[in-house]
Formats: sequence, structure tokens, C-alpha cells
Amino acid sequence: MKKLINDPKQVVTESVEGFGAAHADLVSVHPEPLFITRKDAPRQGKVGLVSGGGSGHEPLHAGYVGRGMLDAAVPGAMFTSPTPDQILPATTAVDGGAGVLHIVKNYTGDVLNFETAAELAEAEGVTVRTVLVNDDVAVEDSLYTAGRRGVGGTVLVERIAGGAAERGDSLDAVTAIAQRVIDNVRSMGVALAACTVPHAGQPSFDLTDDEIEIGIGIHGEPGRHRIAMENADGITGRLMEPILADLKVDSGEKVLLFVNGMGGTPASELYIVYRRARQLLEEQGIVVERSLVGNYITALEMQGASITVLRLDDEMVELWDSPVHTAALHWGV
Amino acid sequence: MKKLINDPKQVVTESVEGFGAAHADLVSVHPEPLFITRKDAPRQGKVGLVSGGGSGHEPLHAGYVGRGMLDAAVPGAMFTSPTPDQILPATTAVDGGAGVLHIVKNYTGDVLNFETAAELAEAEGVTVRTVLVNDDVAVEDSLYTAGRRGVGGTVLVERIAGGAAERGDSLDAVTAIAQRVIDNVRSMGVALAACTVPHAGQPSFDLTDDEIEIGIGIHGEPGRHRIAMENADGITGRLMEPILADLKVDSGEKVLLFVNGMGGTPASELYIVYRRARQLLEEQGIVVERSLVGNYITALEMQGASITVLRLDDEMVELWDSPVHTAALHWGV
Repeated sequence: MKKLINDPKQVVTESVEGFGAAHADLVSVHPEPLFITRKDAPRQGKVGLVSGGGSGHEPLHAGYVGRGMLDAAVPGAMFTSPTPDQILPATTAVDGGAGVLHIVKNYTGDVLNFETAAELAEAEGVTVRTVLVNDDVAVEDSLYTAGRRGVGGTVLVERIAGGAAERGDSLDAVTAIAQRVIDNVRSMGVALAACTVPHAGQPSFDLTDDEIEIGIGIHGEPGRHRIAMENADGITGRLMEPILADLKVDSGEKVLLFVNGMGGTPASELYIVYRRARQLLEEQGIVVERSLVGNYITALEMQGASITVLRLDDEMVELWDSPVHTAALHWGV
Repeated sequence: MKKLINDPKQVVTESVEGFGAAHADLVSVHPEPLFITRKDAPRQGKVGLVSGGGSGHEPLHAGYVGRGMLDAAVPGAMFTSPTPDQILPATTAVDGGAGVLHIVKNYTGDVLNFETAAELAEAEGVTVRTVLVNDDVAVEDSLYTAGRRGVGGTVLVERIAGGAAERGDSLDAVTAIAQRVIDNVRSMGVALAACTVPHAGQPSFDLTDDEIEIGIGIHGEPGRHRIAMENADGITGRLMEPILADLKVDSGEKVLLFVNGMGGTPASELYIVYRRARQLLEEQGIVVERSLVGNYITALEMQGASITVLRLDDEMVELWDSPVHTAALHWGV
């Protein structure tokens, strides 16, 4: 294993320390227990948004802390849920009196730990709502999940709900629009090569030189099936077909098309996938109204990509475009 | 070779096509000969900025086309200079009557081809100036270069000179500040694992499981030496030492610290490198005034990183912070 790390046990701590120093204008790092808040948290009267999950998916979630997106991010160990003793103080730290929304990717550990933290926060007088992101159409249940996994759609939920919270929406309203994004977003991914978790020291799975995994999870957990390597247009078709079958977008509807790199895929390849995905949408008369292409929810250095399609309405577009200032998404300000 | 591509010969064409579709609000793609311009080019009275080079370093250069940065980018084949018949029409397309600056990374092919295009453009009545970026302290001459190579510093030159052009500086003034950035910026990189150029189909070099290459170029060309794998802090020290020896920054001076991923390195590792590089600067009383961490000049999916240090003056900080709206850098607007 060759990695730019010191001690495998210190990867998250040292990385977050570097992140906090590089983005000290945006965030504060609370080292023990570890969580990251917006520099100006709590904001009185504003709904607080908290997300978190295992590390290794950067820039998710700490890269999305800032104006117009998250108020706090809670990083667990690599590919491991954060604990309630981290999530609780992150929640209370960003409560400005208007309540807090937990945005949770649907993995069993995350769901349980956020649930416990929410109960403890409620006992301390903080109103907490929770939404579960479950956009991955690849498998119904998985190694770490009952029900569908939460993947790329999470970035879109955080941005759009974050825009709603920033404009002053109530907790009920922010929760409702987060849920509306979840109801209208679907994703699926592919792996060409595995990643290596630092403390494991070995690739998380094996693929032969001519094999890819369709429907991979963001922790390298199994997808739908392994197939022989195909070209980009073929693979893109295999990802788009189940997304569109599940989402049922009609001709004339508007979508956001998000092509995400898993960490070890060149940008040039992501744009080749984007090109084909967009062609497939346009062939059906679907309008690609907004786009996002890049490494936004990764699996360390895994080679591969995921595609996410969000059915847009006018309010979602307005919130997507509203000012955002985080380490990884930044516009309008 | 597993890549998300169709035909190795079509990687650049299809990728730029996807890029143009995803960022149609910012850029126009001119397919034959291939170059990318700002949507609103030419801007009358504004100095035009043109850069380019071999593909495979995305988001460099097309990702930096837009307000406050480049007016045109000219992508060559993978790791291969663009030709004068691409550079010439890109140059004339962005001439708004105030002249054009060519920002060229110091590789022999790029230097020759931009020089030819500049002469042809001058013959068509366009005033052209050229700056050569040569920030890589690793080697004095290399496989593709007489003199030092141009690497990460290029991104900073494009941003700061782009800010100067946007505020209406003359061609002489924009050239002068671009040269001032070049005179004050130094870089060095490391590779943990090679990348594979699509039409080659094989890794561009071999490293054993316990070996890294210090001073690697952005095409995988050899650096200073191969050493046994070390930890991140040790490697960071090996990159920072020659940068600081060459740049001679004094205590109390301000710098921009840029930690760049080569394409296949997780963000978490880049922040661990950033953490240590910043410590080393601060131990010498050097002030890290601005930071940039991420994949900004890559070598396809190479695993590794580079560090760039720019000695800042007040005008550079002001121009760095000025509004920029490109696919890969976006703030203040």
C-alpha cells in the first residue's frame, strides 16, 4: 500500500486538521469529539443542517460546510459511521433556535447513530428532523444497508436544502424540500478498480484486468453484477437504464445531471460519460437544465464513476443557483 | 487498461464535447481545429489570455476558461502539444484589440508551436506577448524540456494575470504581472504510481510496490530520484526543501500554498500533505495567506501530488481574490 499518509490511525485526524487550516475562513474544527462547523455557527433563527458519515468520501461532507449548504459535518473513521457522541455536540453547536435537520445517507450504522444523537439532542431541547437519502438504484439491500443506499444524491440534497435554510425557511419547509429532492433523485455507479482503506492495507475487493463492477457502492460493497470491460458509452447506458426506469422522467421534464468521479478517474473520462448520459436524456426529450461533473462523493482512490439524475422543479433550480460558499462548491458569492 | 473511454483516438474530442455541453453557459467549443473560448469572446478592449498544452492535465486548461482567467484554451492530443493551426485561430478569436498574452508551460513542443502561432497572429495584425512558466525545481532539463518545466505555477499565473486582464490592465501590465508570478513561484511533485496514456495502453513508467519518484513531471517523465516509500510528512519535507531553497522566502513574507493532486490521490491525503507543508512554512515564520488544495493540474490518474509555493505581494492577493467564474475555479461572482 502506497499512500500519502503518516499513521493509518491518524488519517482522518490529520486530514481534517489540514482541511481546517486551509479553509479557516469557512469552518471551525472541533477536535475532540471530532466535528466541523461553519465558522459563524450557530446562526440565530436559521435551521441548522448537519450531515456526516464515514470518512473516505471527500469532499463529502466537510467540503460542503459553509453558507448555503451544511452547518456541520461529522466525519467517522474511514468508511465507518460517526458516533452519537460526535453527532450530538455538532447538532447542539449549530442550533440557532429554529431546529436542526439531519441529512443521513441510508447505511445501518449511520441511521442508528444519528437516531440516538437526535434523541439526545431532543432531550436537550433541540428540535431535530431527519431525512434519509436512498438514491442508489443498484441494489435493494446491501452489505451495510436495509433498503437502498445513499450516494451521489446526498450532495444535491445538501445543496438544495442548504439553500432553503439559508433563505430562512422553517424546519418543516427545509425538511419538506430535502425530502422532495430525495423522492426525485436516483443514482448508480461503476467500479473499474478498487480502493484501499488505510488501516486495512489491502484493496477492498478484487477485479481482474478485464472486469468491472456495475452498481458498486461507495465503500466498494458489491453491486448488481460483474461484467467484462466495455466502452464508456456502453457502461453509461448500463447505469442510465435502471436510473431512468426507476425515476420515470417524461419527455419535456427538466433534470440535473451529475457525473461523479470515485476518486481515481481522470476528469476527461467523466466528461466522456457525461456526454453519453446527456445524449441518452436528450434522445428521450428530457432537458438537462443543470450539470455537475467532478469528484464530489468519492471512495478514496477507487477508479470509477457514478451518475445521478435529479428531476427538477423551478424551486429546486432557484435553490441550486442560490449563493453557496463551501470548500468544494462555491458560486454566487 | 481499463478506462471510461470509447476509442483511444477520440478521448480528447469526446471529452471536450462533454465539457462544452456541461459548461455551455461559460464556454464555446470550436471543434475543427479544436479550441475552447469564453462564451463572450472577444471582449473589446480587454487583453486576451490564451493557454494550452497536451491534454491529460484537466482541469488545466479548458477548466480555467471564463471571466477572470483565460479567454481561450487549446488542448493538444494526450500529453502532446497543440499545433499552431489550433493556437492561431484561438488567438485571433479572443483578440479584442488590446492584444493577446500566451501563457506557455516550458516544454519544447509547446514553446515552438506557440511561437509559430504568435508569429502568424502578428502577421494578421494581433499583438502577442508570451510568458513561459518554469516553476518546477526538480530538474534543470528534462525529457521534454530545455530549462525547468512548467507545472502547478501555471494555474496561479492564469488566475492572477486573468484578474489583471479582467480589470482592464494593458498588455504590457498583464504580461508584467504574469512574469512577476512566474519569478516568485516554485513547485515540485512526487509520484506513487504511474498513469496510462490511452493510446499507449501501458503505464508510462514502472514503480515497484515500495518505490516512489521524487520530482516527477506531469507526464510521468523522470524526476530527481527514486526512493523507498516514506510517510507523508517525510515526502512533504523532501518536496518543500528544494522549493524553499530556490525561492528563498524570508520570515514574515506571505505565500500562497497550493497542494495539487495528480489525479488518483484522495483529497484526504492532499490535506495531510497540506498540513505538513504549512507547518514547515510556519516554523520559518512564513505566513500562509492563501491556499489551494485539490486536483488542478493532473497527469490523468497518476497517484501523487505536487506542492507549489508562490511569494505573494498585495496586488497578487487582490487579483487572486477578484471574481473568477470558470468550470474549475469560481468565486466572487
